[in-house]
Amino acid sequence: MSAPIIAIDAMGGDFGPRNIVQASLACLTATPSLHLALVGQASLIEELIARQPGVDRSRLQIINAGEVITMDDPPAQALRGKPDSSMRVALQLVASGQAQACVSAGNTGALMALSRFVLKTLPGIDRPAMVAAIPTRAGYCQLLDLGANVDCSAETLYQFAVMGSVMAETLGITRPKVALLNVGTEDIKGNQQVKRAASLLQAASGLNYIGYVEGDGVYRGEADVVVCDGFVGNVLLKSSEGLASMIAARIEMLFSRNLLTKAVGVLALPLLKRLQADLAPARHNGASLLGLQGIVVKSHGSASVQGFQSAINRALIETRENQPQRLRGQLEVLLQNDRI
Amino acid sequence: MSAPIIAIDAMGGDFGPRNIVQASLACLTATPSLHLALVGQASLIEELIARQPGVDRSRLQIINAGEVITMDDPPAQALRGKPDSSMRVALQLVASGQAQACVSAGNTGALMALSRFVLKTLPGIDRPAMVAAIPTRAGYCQLLDLGANVDCSAETLYQFAVMGSVMAETLGITRPKVALLNVGTEDIKGNQQVKRAASLLQAASGLNYIGYVEGDGVYRGEADVVVCDGFVGNVLLKSSEGLASMIAARIEMLFSRNLLTKAVGVLALPLLKRLQADLAPARHNGASLLGLQGIVVKSHGSASVQGFQSAINRALIETRENQPQRLRGQLEVLLQNDRI
Repeated sequence: MSAPIIAIDAMGGDFGPRNIVQASLACLTATPSLHLALVGQASLIEELIARQPGVDRSRLQIINAGEVITMDDPPAQALRGKPDSSMRVALQLVASGQAQACVSAGNTGALMALSRFVLKTLPGIDRPAMVAAIPTRAGYCQLLDLGANVDCSAETLYQFAVMGSVMAETLGITRPKVALLNVGTEDIKGNQQVKRAASLLQAASGLNYIGYVEGDGVYRGEADVVVCDGFVGNVLLKSSEGLASMIAARIEMLFSRNLLTKAVGVLALPLLKRLQADLAPARHNGASLLGLQGIVVKSHGSASVQGFQSAINRALIETRENQPQRLRGQLEVLLQNDRI
Repeated sequence: MSAPIIAIDAMGGDFGPRNIVQASLACLTATPSLHLALVGQASLIEELIARQPGVDRSRLQIINAGEVITMDDPPAQALRGKPDSSMRVALQLVASGQAQACVSAGNTGALMALSRFVLKTLPGIDRPAMVAAIPTRAGYCQLLDLGANVDCSAETLYQFAVMGSVMAETLGITRPKVALLNVGTEDIKGNQQVKRAASLLQAASGLNYIGYVEGDGVYRGEADVVVCDGFVGNVLLKSSEGLASMIAARIEMLFSRNLLTKAVGVLALPLLKRLQADLAPARHNGASLLGLQGIVVKSHGSASVQGFQSAINRALIETRENQPQRLRGQLEVLLQNDRI
């Protein structure tokens, strides 16, 4: 696959197509082998492209889509009410083989529903999960689900664990430590879904399941893969982003108190800024929808140009690694023995 | 109530009675009006007290309890299998009026179950909630539940909102802004319980319900009271503690790179330590069980001596404020119009 084509939902996200088109053109310039298909309101996209000089149009298609899924459209509306949405058309390009991946900053619930409908899940997987790496004391941890599934059965959590483990392995981690997020590490802790998922995982062969991890254990780096339902994962991720921002702001404030602390603050600021950026990987790098028969990367709704570029790059890497095929192969082996 | 008696579960927590006895004696010295009843294995407690000079025994009772609830005892075992546990005996002192509050660092599930059984809930409240204040950009926010209830119905979340609002008002906040924690702020977001709780709260009179708040919004200080189930609240609190520790450790590491950054680090460290302490209020200050006909404060299982002292002081403040009586009175007014 020498010239991957990535389909971009140009209309998704909080800021409309401007950032997205700008990020797309920057990626096109940075990666000479990359082809993009920008999907959305063609006249608007053309207008935005016209503002940029030196665009290599031979690697850029514009595909018109007459509808836009808004951030508050319910999934059912996205699925049935808007057959010509930019999100859906972009996904259809992947399903038909005209593109190898789709990137969208749009409505998460709609992206989840449309991805399942258009691309279908891999054998053995009921629901796709959204996964991103978060920094820990030990390096990084794959956290899933991040919000695509607010309610999860034990079986779904089990499948997430398998997918997360395979994802970590493809990122180079040998026998990744897989844990379930819980409110305590004792057996009696947790809700019914988590307790039942623990039983399934204890019985699973081929997985390095290490048991429960608590919220603080996530950041201590106790596991390489942390599994939870999308409500919990979303709250963990967003509250962490909020806390990191608050800490950065407080440090700036503390440092601005007097001349001495001001001098210290000026010296410390670059270190702190780097730390802060590192702590918001989903906003910066995008999150993958795992378990589909195709590559879908979700960029943060309020991603910057740079953030959306990172999401495109993530899709490019998954394309080169042939992520769904690898996942399918390893899922077959893992799930064969543990069919539930 | 000039001489409040606080019952201390001396056997709870990860480290056994040593820290707890030491913290109790320190509080006794610091607060001349305070009386304490230490509940647990009397011979062991006596031995620990004997090591400390100058203890005012006239304000200190030791109540023997033959059993100890371990951190992995299921609530049912705590309730039916150990009638003479230190936790239960301490709660019974409150129920019988021999003490005005109970402090325990023991098993949360057991404390929750025993508190309900021994003290009963206030009229209109089905389940007590665990609440603590977490720091935000705007000041503090009362977060509940923190782990006492891993599954919550919409009605339970509604009751938590009412209790949290009353708690914030008793802490001096006028018309506290009450929000439900969710994975998005749009109406379609969230699980069924949260959506139904939102309907109940929209219809509630006497509450300043502002809608959904996301994880990052909690730290932005968008609400004075944030309501969620105990699974989510526990993960938010503990992951925040873990992240704050990680950030502190990273900053130390960044600062130790070379002579210049080392010099900066030495200057910045006190500021950062203060920040870190501020970010782990539950570990440091204890959390209250709200909605009971008596005062119960839960100290962190691995609380330091200082941490347990703070929990005793929190109980003392609630005793002076007559927390349950105030809550009962305000609950009657609030729930009268919104009986569900």
